[in-house]
Amino acid sequence: MAAIDAEAWPWRPNSSMAAARICSSRRARGIPLVPALRAPLSGGVRVSAPATLAHLVSSAPAERAAHTYGKAFRDVVRALYGDMAAAPDPVARPRDERDVVDLLEWAAGADVAVVPYGAGSSVVGGVEYRAGEHSGVLSLDLSGLVRVLEVDRVSRAARIQAGALGPGPEAQLRPYGLTLRHFPQSFAFSTLGGRLATRAGGHYATLHTHIDDLAESLRVVTPAGVSESLRMPGSGAGPSPDRLFLGSEGTLGIITEAWMRLQDRPSHKASASVVFERFPDAVEAVRAIAQSGLHPANCRLLDPGEAALSGVAPEGGSVLGVESAHGPVEGRLAELVALAREHGGSPAEEASADGDSAANTWRSAFLRMPYLRAGLARMSVISETFETACTWDRFPALYEAVHRDVGAAVRKVTGASGLINCRFTHVYPDGPAPYFTVIAAGRRGSEAAMWDEIKAAAMERLGEQGATVTHHHAVGRDHRPGYARQRPEPFALALRAAKQALDPAGILNPGVLFDAAAR
Amino acid sequence: MAAIDAEAWPWRPNSSMAAARICSSRRARGIPLVPALRAPLSGGVRVSAPATLAHLVSSAPAERAAHTYGKAFRDVVRALYGDMAAAPDPVARPRDERDVVDLLEWAAGADVAVVPYGAGSSVVGGVEYRAGEHSGVLSLDLSGLVRVLEVDRVSRAARIQAGALGPGPEAQLRPYGLTLRHFPQSFAFSTLGGRLATRAGGHYATLHTHIDDLAESLRVVTPAGVSESLRMPGSGAGPSPDRLFLGSEGTLGIITEAWMRLQDRPSHKASASVVFERFPDAVEAVRAIAQSGLHPANCRLLDPGEAALSGVAPEGGSVLGVESAHGPVEGRLAELVALAREHGGSPAEEASADGDSAANTWRSAFLRMPYLRAGLARMSVISETFETACTWDRFPALYEAVHRDVGAAVRKVTGASGLINCRFTHVYPDGPAPYFTVIAAGRRGSEAAMWDEIKAAAMERLGEQGATVTHHHAVGRDHRPGYARQRPEPFALALRAAKQALDPAGILNPGVLFDAAAR
Repeated sequence: MAAIDAEAWPWRPNSSMAAARICSSRRARGIPLVPALRAPLSGGVRVSAPATLAHLVSSAPAERAAHTYGKAFRDVVRALYGDMAAAPDPVARPRDERDVVDLLEWAAGADVAVVPYGAGSSVVGGVEYRAGEHSGVLSLDLSGLVRVLEVDRVSRAARIQAGALGPGPEAQLRPYGLTLRHFPQSFAFSTLGGRLATRAGGHYATLHTHIDDLAESLRVVTPAGVSESLRMPGSGAGPSPDRLFLGSEGTLGIITEAWMRLQDRPSHKASASVVFERFPDAVEAVRAIAQSGLHPANCRLLDPGEAALSGVAPEGGSVLGVESAHGPVEGRLAELVALAREHGGSPAEEASADGDSAANTWRSAFLRMPYLRAGLARMSVISETFETACTWDRFPALYEAVHRDVGAAVRKVTGASGLINCRFTHVYPDGPAPYFTVIAAGRRGSEAAMWDEIKAAAMERLGEQGATVTHHHAVGRDHRPGYARQRPEPFALALRAAKQALDPAGILNPGVLFDAAAR
Repeated sequence: MAAIDAEAWPWRPNSSMAAARICSSRRARGIPLVPALRAPLSGGVRVSAPATLAHLVSSAPAERAAHTYGKAFRDVVRALYGDMAAAPDPVARPRDERDVVDLLEWAAGADVAVVPYGAGSSVVGGVEYRAGEHSGVLSLDLSGLVRVLEVDRVSRAARIQAGALGPGPEAQLRPYGLTLRHFPQSFAFSTLGGRLATRAGGHYATLHTHIDDLAESLRVVTPAGVSESLRMPGSGAGPSPDRLFLGSEGTLGIITEAWMRLQDRPSHKASASVVFERFPDAVEAVRAIAQSGLHPANCRLLDPGEAALSGVAPEGGSVLGVESAHGPVEGRLAELVALAREHGGSPAEEASADGDSAANTWRSAFLRMPYLRAGLARMSVISETFETACTWDRFPALYEAVHRDVGAAVRKVTGASGLINCRFTHVYPDGPAPYFTVIAAGRRGSEAAMWDEIKAAAMERLGEQGATVTHHHAVGRDHRPGYARQRPEPFALALRAAKQALDPAGILNPGVLFDAAAR
């Protein structure tokens, strides 16, 4: 893993974080150490790389264990139980693109499945091989490719290697006064390539928030050759090559580097929070803001449950946070707050230059959540998040259906009510991206199965309501049934044909996007 | 052709337009009438539709002649000479999507090439069949599908049929206070489907200017079935289905309708023009504006030749026009003008609420140009436009190379210097979209061949300079050599495979994007 520049991570979790304490002693909490991990780590590896590639691969149990899972609830739970049935056979760490080419060539010839591994933050089974039809499974860890290779200050773009985590490039770009300004919750724990391959959404929640729009050109190693698109601010020449690889989740090729569009580091910043008594009013306020053309740097909405859980509004009420980051920003912030007032909101406090405290409270809770979840899992608490996007006209029905039907699933599975909270992580002129959190009491030993059942109910509801099965968490293996429903059938035919052309041996991330038989 | 709502066309060319006068008498100017058109219109048609589809098709010579060409210079010239060698065999006018399905089914079975025809404004040979390998050629005229089928006022979106020209939907959306606000130069003469299929750029020149970003979902008839994507404000579920069809130029399917993202009709508007003595200063000013985050509604730059030709700055100098259209706009316009001043510009006059006169002069020249060109062609004047996009760092070299090398080609082909002008039609934070106009003296009878040679030199130069072969004019048949160079080879493989999956008989617009043998 590349060195993380802590300074570059702008929102350091506070040091008293509960989750950090929970994690502080592995042995005391019954977390299995590597020697105690279950099969197949104790058995022999099924395939070994040829001598020419031996220096790139490792079959050490610790390496294999570390590359077995992503960070879904069921991953955390299975790791906790020492279940390593899905471990890859060797793990490879290419040092450059040439190594990636060589590794793919060997894998294609030896029928070895290749599972690209960025930083392992997938919550959808994206890095877990389940197909069982290949002669072996190679985890292709891109974390050696971390450099910013070139900076074009004039066009504000940089060529960045795909294995770079969030903070590294930010530190390297700071001397130029530039930033990628793409801050997913997993900022410090996700790679550029992983974000491109999964169409990740950033923390800045309006305008160009998806990494798709920030990619100027991509370099992708496929078994059929290396694809490099031209750097272009825009083009009308045929379907966009980049858009085929964006979202391909390692099934069409391995992204090795990208020219990314950058921004000047913001010189001004102001934010405000507004409280609403009625959630529907808050939704209307957010819609007005999203359609205003004001493009706030940020616009988050927490429903009453989410506001209470994160400590932002313990007394109830929905909370809207807005943020502006251009030129002199006070005027624009005032316009945003005025829009919120028109829809029944009350500013929580005066806006201040360094961010208001409700926003800070929420941000802190937001960043702590993944740590906290690992701790909760140890107490058999089931926590699940799923996110979607829908047009504004469909949101009220979707919100109601999720509460009603996922709530019923939680009661059926756990025998008790759980918490179902919602926030808007991103808003577009034509609709919000709601993010739901479900927290419920699990039974020790059955957590993963219970999670599966709740998750299936959630997916079903999203599909019925015409909402996307995922807005930024990717499809992976876990969302495939919902994806199969969302994707138009002729497009599925075209995409499968494209895969067969680029990956004729069917070795690239089998089981993701396509059923594993698609090879 | 749908009725054009003249009221909805906001910039009516003035009535004294020279081009209109030139066109006023066909007979007097030697323009051939239908009976005098050359082969194969006089011969029999090669294929005829089955009885069940007979009511949809026509082989009348006037229909066939009207569907033979687009609006490229060489199209205008060949039409002028009465050369109809490329005429389609029958012309079909489906009344609804079901008709499109039936026509494709017949064509696939009868080996009839299908060339989709919107309003025939292609300048890249997009509607001209040249392959010669099929048993016949059907021109599929979508102009019967013109309705706005549904409006979602809350999400600001409408479901619009693909054959609608620009003004029709605008008139139907006005009562809702909504606008698509996509105004290509061909606004009144291009269909929604044609713009989607070619990734058209609109007149509003920053932020979401390409129609790609305005499309919420598409319905596409392919020989392998009808593809309909879900309406989504955003999605991270696999590669975007819409992005495969956007830019596919009729080679993968026929777009029949789309949900389009709309905007509120602007309530405020202000514009200003700024004059620069030095073109490089003007380029820097535009870059600063494009990277400012101010997102002006419009930002056009004319180089000295273009400014003089359009009558905006007869005394020389580069002219920058900016426009703002949100909430109270004066403040934002002042910020834009201040940025231009910082780079050496002088405001041409006071900004006024109804647009300044330099902007009006330019707009009028802009709208008149296509009419004027038809007149110029009759005087054997060669006029060619080509447009591109490149990152800012490459623009100075590109500008110089085009002037030097295309200038040399003009001298070689015509024996005299021509005019080579440039303007930025669109600007992005990472680069401009320069649009070049070449005007040169042709020799009667050789105009098309001379044009071909100049065009080839221009394409060559764009490729060498790493600029896109087209920013919004599409690839068609004329840009295919340049496109083959721009497109990464593995992507070409994938796209060809996708085409074979969707169009196994290879009937869809043969020769566009792919060589005609790709079937």
